[in-house]
Amino acid sequence: MSALHDLGLVETADAIAQGAITSEAATASALHRLEALGPRYHAVMLIDRDGALEAARAVDLARARGEDIGPLGGVPLAHKDLLYRAGRVCTGGSLIRKDFVPDVTASVLERLDGAGALDLGTLHLAEFALSPTGFNAHYGHGRSPWNLDYGSGGSSSGSGAAVAARLVSGALGSDTGGSIRHPSAMCGVTGLKPTNGLVPLYGAMPMAPSLDTIGPLTRSVRDAARMLSVIAGPDVRDATTLAAPERDYESGLSGDLKGLTIAVPQGYYRTTADGEILALMDDSLKVLKEAGAKVVETTVPDMALINALMQVVMTCEAATLHRQWLEERPGDYGAQVRARILPGFALPATRYVEALMMRAKVAEDWLHRAMGGADMVHIPTLPIAVPSIAETTQGAPEDVAVAIARVTHCTRAINYLGLPSLSVPCGFTANGLPAAFQLVGRPFGEPVLLRAGDAYQRRTDFHLRVPPDCGPI
Amino acid sequence: MSALHDLGLVETADAIAQGAITSEAATASALHRLEALGPRYHAVMLIDRDGALEAARAVDLARARGEDIGPLGGVPLAHKDLLYRAGRVCTGGSLIRKDFVPDVTASVLERLDGAGALDLGTLHLAEFALSPTGFNAHYGHGRSPWNLDYGSGGSSSGSGAAVAARLVSGALGSDTGGSIRHPSAMCGVTGLKPTNGLVPLYGAMPMAPSLDTIGPLTRSVRDAARMLSVIAGPDVRDATTLAAPERDYESGLSGDLKGLTIAVPQGYYRTTADGEILALMDDSLKVLKEAGAKVVETTVPDMALINALMQVVMTCEAATLHRQWLEERPGDYGAQVRARILPGFALPATRYVEALMMRAKVAEDWLHRAMGGADMVHIPTLPIAVPSIAETTQGAPEDVAVAIARVTHCTRAINYLGLPSLSVPCGFTANGLPAAFQLVGRPFGEPVLLRAGDAYQRRTDFHLRVPPDCGPI
Repeated sequence: MSALHDLGLVETADAIAQGAITSEAATASALHRLEALGPRYHAVMLIDRDGALEAARAVDLARARGEDIGPLGGVPLAHKDLLYRAGRVCTGGSLIRKDFVPDVTASVLERLDGAGALDLGTLHLAEFALSPTGFNAHYGHGRSPWNLDYGSGGSSSGSGAAVAARLVSGALGSDTGGSIRHPSAMCGVTGLKPTNGLVPLYGAMPMAPSLDTIGPLTRSVRDAARMLSVIAGPDVRDATTLAAPERDYESGLSGDLKGLTIAVPQGYYRTTADGEILALMDDSLKVLKEAGAKVVETTVPDMALINALMQVVMTCEAATLHRQWLEERPGDYGAQVRARILPGFALPATRYVEALMMRAKVAEDWLHRAMGGADMVHIPTLPIAVPSIAETTQGAPEDVAVAIARVTHCTRAINYLGLPSLSVPCGFTANGLPAAFQLVGRPFGEPVLLRAGDAYQRRTDFHLRVPPDCGPI
Repeated sequence: MSALHDLGLVETADAIAQGAITSEAATASALHRLEALGPRYHAVMLIDRDGALEAARAVDLARARGEDIGPLGGVPLAHKDLLYRAGRVCTGGSLIRKDFVPDVTASVLERLDGAGALDLGTLHLAEFALSPTGFNAHYGHGRSPWNLDYGSGGSSSGSGAAVAARLVSGALGSDTGGSIRHPSAMCGVTGLKPTNGLVPLYGAMPMAPSLDTIGPLTRSVRDAARMLSVIAGPDVRDATTLAAPERDYESGLSGDLKGLTIAVPQGYYRTTADGEILALMDDSLKVLKEAGAKVVETTVPDMALINALMQVVMTCEAATLHRQWLEERPGDYGAQVRARILPGFALPATRYVEALMMRAKVAEDWLHRAMGGADMVHIPTLPIAVPSIAETTQGAPEDVAVAIARVTHCTRAINYLGLPSLSVPCGFTANGLPAAFQLVGRPFGEPVLLRAGDAYQRRTDFHLRVPPDCGPI
């Protein structure tokens, strides 16, 4: 049998349920790796060793008594440190909230608790979830298990690194402009940004509420489906949540894509993306075709406009939330993070209202043109090879800003559009870092995205590759 | 039997259904009055005589064939001229849209059509729905059937006047800051501003979308309940609509208020309202108590803050919608209307976002304090006697602004709070103009509001009084 940390999330859950392993053993293994390897990647904020082991033993006893331990019974997980758990410090990656103790628990954490999962502690993120590379002036830059000179991606940096380095088999992240998909792509794991309104935001530190989403980072698509089945669905405490038709996201994973059509927009990223990324995109499309999908070419509306509208919404909402802190404690912000918020103060209300009002129409137009009659759109997660930490932190501020903007070029529009997107690892660039494609769906189109991503992973092993730096310890 | 125009909406519907009268006769009577009396009040924009009579005859034939003609089968209605009907001019009360022909039909009109109602034409409103008194520089000031020197209230001026003067038995209006409730109160009819999200806005000219609501103006509460049952409920074309538990709003009208508690907030309007309004409020509470309700005293949070937040939301959204027209055709706006929009351009996005973000919390606080454990809150619709047209149009602009602000003092907060409110006529002030109270409920609390309003009307006849100016013609 594999080492415990080699088991994926569904494998771990099933092994515990079947009695092949104990939750205590799986948890002890995860704790050991979080403590030994976590600091290397700046992946971990806070670990509750004793509480975790106690909870694990309780699950093992419940199972021994024949009780139903739930679809994630006894599985050790840890999550981005912006999900509140009553009584536990939640920093949001910031200095300002270094000692903040919420008195409510996020709905998604309550749902995972209800499914039997264990919550071992909190994982690193970019300061206030405001960096796509994992930049954090206070807790260290999130580092990639594939190469410590490269960022783990942000803002869910610790979630990406922890899953990639097999510290835990799954972790929640949040995605306002790509914050689940960047670390997924940059660390070589699977990440799902759900449709806006599918997963409740109650009890999550807001970044830009009308763009925020919460979703899983896991090793495989099947693991993501298991987590999504637990966290999705309406919540009386979050009025933005909508009833979704689907509740079991695993059962549709057939491996067969016959009858599904994948759209590949021409122009757009294809004119500016790195050549090696384009080649990997083409390779991944070949595999999806082998699985039975039809591939068609489409176009996109003006993506620069959509990215600009997203920027208006994000900066205005972030500026509103940060106004008081920025007035009172400006020096407690990292310069790069402060610079991302400040433009929001300069915009008139009419620009923001306009950006909100255009949203439904722009989304309809995007779906019509980019997707046409297809079931999903295939684009890269990052249109470039993963940049080094130096490239996104050193040098002239304008060069740094350009390098950062390139990271989010294919992700941030999707949040404005409110659509679901699945990021799937699909190979490596010349620098040895992972690359990934995104499948973007219609609202609540998660089932077809997961079906396609799973079919791809049944035919490839990129998601199973182990970073060189995180072997046995 | 009463003259046809004396029949209320439910009475007319039932009489047609039972064959006691024909739709053609009811429609001919309504057309005659709309044409003969409508201009006197500036109540009517456009009447489709031939189409209406043809539709009426079709209903009569359908009934003769034994077909189900619907809950409003053959009832002649007309509505505020901001609800689109494909192919028909919809001015929005403006010069700018004087010739605008939409190619879609409002969901509420489609629902009334589906219930068998006839749509005789469009009714006057304040320019772009932006005046609480009925001010319209282009189509004349809406005038009260009770006294032509007084406004009919706005912005649904024509709806209020037409129902009060018995031109039609029911009319839809829209309410962004009181635009259903002002004309209801000022004309002595019943008006219901539904919970935000209960009645679909699709196909209605927007004023400030996050505050806009659509609802009925009718003679009685029972009539309002009939109309609400037809127009309420989710609409796939309006993502802001929510599923409501109730669909039949008539069946709960028992006349008995035992078990219901009505809260009367101290302070607030009671310190500034006209003495004669306060006396009428007390009288109406006595009647509600006689019907079985318990009355308790509560308080309110800072209403000036809530009114200010509402103002931020309204002006920012209105400014966004009017920006291009205001740049290109400023002279085509009435000065009073332009002055109400312009402040929206001066506000930063963060102020608007803040006003939106505070909304849920402020509403929760308001419900907690103003309602406490009660079922509804009782406040005046206008805290003052109806002002004359001269008082709200002549004199120093700042005096006019103050006079107008007093009209909306008790209404506009309710739109920000998103709550339902029923305005019920409850007597007359010394100037001979009607006065009214509002019952404000919890979200989707329409059933208890209607039950209380109906019980009040079973014990009073203010809603049956006929304005002196609109007798037989």
